[in-house]
Amino acid sequence: MKINKRSISKSYKTVRPVSSGIEKILYDVFPLLDHGFIRIVDYMGNDQAVVQAARVSYGKGTKKVSEDRGLIRYLMRHRHSTPFEMCEIKFHIKLPIFVARQWIRHRTASINEYSARYSVLDKEFYIPNRKDLAIQSQSNKQGRGEILSKNRSEEALKMLKEDAEKNYGTYEYLLNETNEGKVIDKERKGLARELARINLTLNTYTQWYWKTNLHNLMNFVHLRADSHSQYEIRVYAKVILKIMRAWVPITTEAFESYRSGSVELSSEAIKVVRMMINGKKIRQADSGLSTREWNELMKILEKR
Amino acid sequence: MKINKRSISKSYKTVRPVSSGIEKILYDVFPLLDHGFIRIVDYMGNDQAVVQAARVSYGKGTKKVSEDRGLIRYLMRHRHSTPFEMCEIKFHIKLPIFVARQWIRHRTASINEYSARYSVLDKEFYIPNRKDLAIQSQSNKQGRGEILSKNRSEEALKMLKEDAEKNYGTYEYLLNETNEGKVIDKERKGLARELARINLTLNTYTQWYWKTNLHNLMNFVHLRADSHSQYEIRVYAKVILKIMRAWVPITTEAFESYRSGSVELSSEAIKVVRMMINGKKIRQADSGLSTREWNELMKILEKR
Amino acid sequence: MKINKRSISKSYKTVRPVSSGIEKILYDVFPLLDHGFIRIVDYMGNDQAVVQAARVSYGKGTKKVSEDRGLIRYLMRHRHSTPFEMCEIKFHIKLPIFVARQWIRHRTASINEYSARYSVLDKEFYIPNRKDLAIQSQSNKQGRGEILSKNRSEEALKMLKEDAEKNYGTYEYLLNETNEGKVIDKERKGLARELARINLTLNTYTQWYWKTNLHNLMNFVHLRADSHSQYEIRVYAKVILKIMRAWVPITTEAFESYRSGSVELSSEAIKVVRMMINGKKIRQADSGLSTREWNELMKILEKR
Amino acid sequence: MKINKRSISKSYKTVRPVSSGIEKILYDVFPLLDHGFIRIVDYMGNDQAVVQAARVSYGKGTKKVSEDRGLIRYLMRHRHSTPFEMCEIKFHIKLPIFVARQWIRHRTASINEYSARYSVLDKEFYIPNRKDLAIQSQSNKQGRGEILSKNRSEEALKMLKEDAEKNYGTYEYLLNETNEGKVIDKERKGLARELARINLTLNTYTQWYWKTNLHNLMNFVHLRADSHSQYEIRVYAKVILKIMRAWVPITTEAFESYRSGSVELSSEAIKVVRMMINGKKIRQADSGLSTREWNELMKILEKR
Repeated sequence: MKINKRSISKSYKTVRPVSSGIEKILYDVFPLLDHGFIRIVDYMGNDQAVVQAARVSYGKGTKKVSEDRGLIRYLMRHRHSTPFEMCEIKFHIKLPIFVARQWIRHRTASINEYSARYSVLDKEFYIPNRKDLAIQSQSNKQGRGEILSKNRSEEALKMLKEDAEKNYGTYEYLLNETNEGKVIDKERKGLARELARINLTLNTYTQWYWKTNLHNLMNFVHLRADSHSQYEIRVYAKVILKIMRAWVPITTEAFESYRSGSVELSSEAIKVVRMMINGKKIRQADSGLSTREWNELMKILEKR
Repeated sequence: MKINKRSISKSYKTVRPVSSGIEKILYDVFPLLDHGFIRIVDYMGNDQAVVQAARVSYGKGTKKVSEDRGLIRYLMRHRHSTPFEMCEIKFHIKLPIFVARQWIRHRTASINEYSARYSVLDKEFYIPNRKDLAIQSQSNKQGRGEILSKNRSEEALKMLKEDAEKNYGTYEYLLNETNEGKVIDKERKGLARELARINLTLNTYTQWYWKTNLHNLMNFVHLRADSHSQYEIRVYAKVILKIMRAWVPITTEAFESYRSGSVELSSEAIKVVRMMINGKKIRQADSGLSTREWNELMKILEKR
Repeated sequence: MKINKRSISKSYKTVRPVSSGIEKILYDVFPLLDHGFIRIVDYMGNDQAVVQAARVSYGKGTKKVSEDRGLIRYLMRHRHSTPFEMCEIKFHIKLPIFVARQWIRHRTASINEYSARYSVLDKEFYIPNRKDLAIQSQSNKQGRGEILSKNRSEEALKMLKEDAEKNYGTYEYLLNETNEGKVIDKERKGLARELARINLTLNTYTQWYWKTNLHNLMNFVHLRADSHSQYEIRVYAKVILKIMRAWVPITTEAFESYRSGSVELSSEAIKVVRMMINGKKIRQADSGLSTREWNELMKILEKR
Repeated sequence: MKINKRSISKSYKTVRPVSSGIEKILYDVFPLLDHGFIRIVDYMGNDQAVVQAARVSYGKGTKKVSEDRGLIRYLMRHRHSTPFEMCEIKFHIKLPIFVARQWIRHRTASINEYSARYSVLDKEFYIPNRKDLAIQSQSNKQGRGEILSKNRSEEALKMLKEDAEKNYGTYEYLLNETNEGKVIDKERKGLARELARINLTLNTYTQWYWKTNLHNLMNFVHLRADSHSQYEIRVYAKVILKIMRAWVPITTEAFESYRSGSVELSSEAIKVVRMMINGKKIRQADSGLSTREWNELMKILEKR
């Protein structure tokens, strides 16, 4: 993971709690895809803030779980979400519009997005790497299969690039303004920005400030770092997971035990597991599981 | 479960989707605890509404999962929450204030509560049944142990009753108004209602309209019908589960397979399960699980 | 406003409250822009449901405001939002992606959107009417000025149309599938749908189910039917306002008095108004208002 | 306003933005009522963070509004809420339960409350000051009128105190544990804490961590510092307003101009104002305003 080091070096005194891990990477630019990035703008709280909030709840009742790590793991295991809401983080993110459209489905967050009604969007669009161009998966209605042949992928990249550039060219022509802010033709008046932008392609980059709490951040990472999520948002989720580890290392460790690495077994599946442990033979037909569920379960149990 | 049948019999014509199961119990009063109740006031949608919303998302991509039940189970298994948000339900609920304080922690709902600033609260307080009076659990910091002896529980009930009644008496005196609305002493002016009520006990009943969507309703039932939740809110959650079954039977069945009856295994626990299935011996000390986690896992695997 | 009458005529019996106004237009298709539409799929509650919830809150305290209309106006005037949350509505909406991106900023709603990862998007893009093509406003950074000349607008429309069609053509080619679902070249494998779609333009139509409560619906209409909102989302907000009027006529009337037609005066502005009423001369320089605020105030006071 | 200065003096280095005003009062205890307090535990952002987020939205479009104060006032005037969501604050608050019940109606916040299922509540209840004991208002169904006579208020205070103490005594007896944690009778087992607490009065103090963003904080202050809100929550809102001023002085100034000090005029009221400015006579009967609305308007226009 490349990091463009921040130029900012100014530091302040504060009586607030700090996380030394995240202080070192604050404002650093983590480049993603071809033009995207994530940059941490601010944060509030650390692992101890989670513990502190939980101890308010339990009062004298926490005496037993005297150790921070144990308490955080307990909270994660039993899905106690409110103590994790006590930490907050704010990012500056540059991302293609089609990724932004998936991202915004996570509703419990605050967003300020660059407005193409006010300002002209940069001439930047996401063009995938050759190795990320794959055919439609046959087994997974929403996924990718094997990667395209060299010829096919070169053709596809050329088409994507040409269309994006042609559309951006039309955008500039309609605005009567280049992306450097120069008027193209002084005799002509530009179309309103809010209209001209409708011609841009969904791979055009936008940017926003995104602020959320640690609980919702974990939901985001859990869903979007998963292999079923689209590759282009997954790379963002994975960088956020790394940032999480620098910020709240104990919480992140517990997250990996109990959320991202955990498996949920249905009431029917757990019965099958009990029989298997007891050495009983069981077949899908007798299990109460559908073929699909049975296969999913066997995959979990055979993994190493 | 006792039901006080509604007196309302008026019916209307609608082109909206209906759920025949819930229509039969709409406005019925389900009594709870000593003075509480749940009454369904309105609903929107049914199992087919969940399916319909999911099919919009998948478009032509749902051809394969042509059957409603299979689709609903798929959505539940993979924690796709938005289709379940498409159904809505509204209850009229009477409940003790200490239960209301737990209930309201479920934030994604709409509430209109009876205001004790505007109006005088009824003379009704929750006095537990003898069999529900239990000692503090020693193993569970927030739970109950064995039930009290007959003598002790009779004493406790007497004290609870006396205190609640004395405090309500003071409330009436300060208001200078009985709970039937009669002025006590015409020479005297009553204390403001918003002040007099602060003398009431936490077992006083309040009431509210509570409206939420099916997704959040399932979160409520999952958390509050669980054995770790306090008995007094659990009885409400269990009635709501029965109402859910009348309303959306297919969704409720899937909920019981994948949510209320499911088990989540941590990344460490699933490794232990794999070893056990393969007939390998494993001890807690080598498992990567704490004693507490190990015991929780063994309990899951031995249950029948 | 054109309406494509529904073909559905089946009706059911229900004991739920109904709104006769909205029953008549349920499932009707209200066409918008060139390919968009709004269709009501379901609703819950009516004006009386607002009143009923408020009366629970006020209990015996509502005796004075015995009349429904008066109570609804009181609630609206004093911004009591929870009773309005007790009504819910669900729409099926077809809209251009750039409109969907504005719409989704209203976070308190449930959405199921057609997924271009699962299915192929229709060949439909928004091409404005000539009269809606306007130059960038000079005074309003995010608005439109005068409309384009005939020549200019014909040129612009031609470019928008050509680009959208070319991009859709590339989309089909990459998918190796036409929008009618025919395979183009049996020797070739199509690019994954989640990738091919990134080439589409922002004026491509999408569709979704959108469900929200009456309080949030009014926030939506208030913000988006306003003259500062972009024309293309405004037309949707205006249709929703008409639907609201059919559904909850008393609430809509109060909304127009106290929200959409109301004016908020700052603490400085109200002082100016008091002086003007008392016949005192006051100039902007002495008013404590900036030039911009002064002009906004004068516009309000002079309107007729 | 008394402040108990914090003992904590440790400070850290941070590269995050700071607000020098709030750093000086972080962790200070602001005492309220007889046993309550507010203590700032953490914060994120400052006035510049609001500006920064807004500038992302407007991009090059903000060149005109080059000055921070002007931009913040513009955002407040036009109710642009998202930039204010970019600041966050976390409090530790001690408050009577009946106040907590009003407070929690503000749903968009994170809370960790001291749990009386886990731990024993302190022996502290809110007993009003004599000057705050008032009779029920006749004009305002939810308000207070003149204060009680000396005799009456002394009697009321005595009753409130006696009942709270008796109930707390029963609580200790049932728990078989004093509030200092001593077992009362070794032969006896205590009632479960989750049950014993139901005997406590609504003026018993609880405590919680409460975290919200600046936008929601302003909604809280606007509603709860208002004269219609109950005195006991109002004193909390007023302290929070002072804290806001130390934290984000420019935002607070704008808040006082456009929110807490502003007035909303209905479409009918603004017509009346226009006529009055033009020197026309108008009477309530001809105004389209109800008597109540007319009186409210006259009060606004006559205030000085």
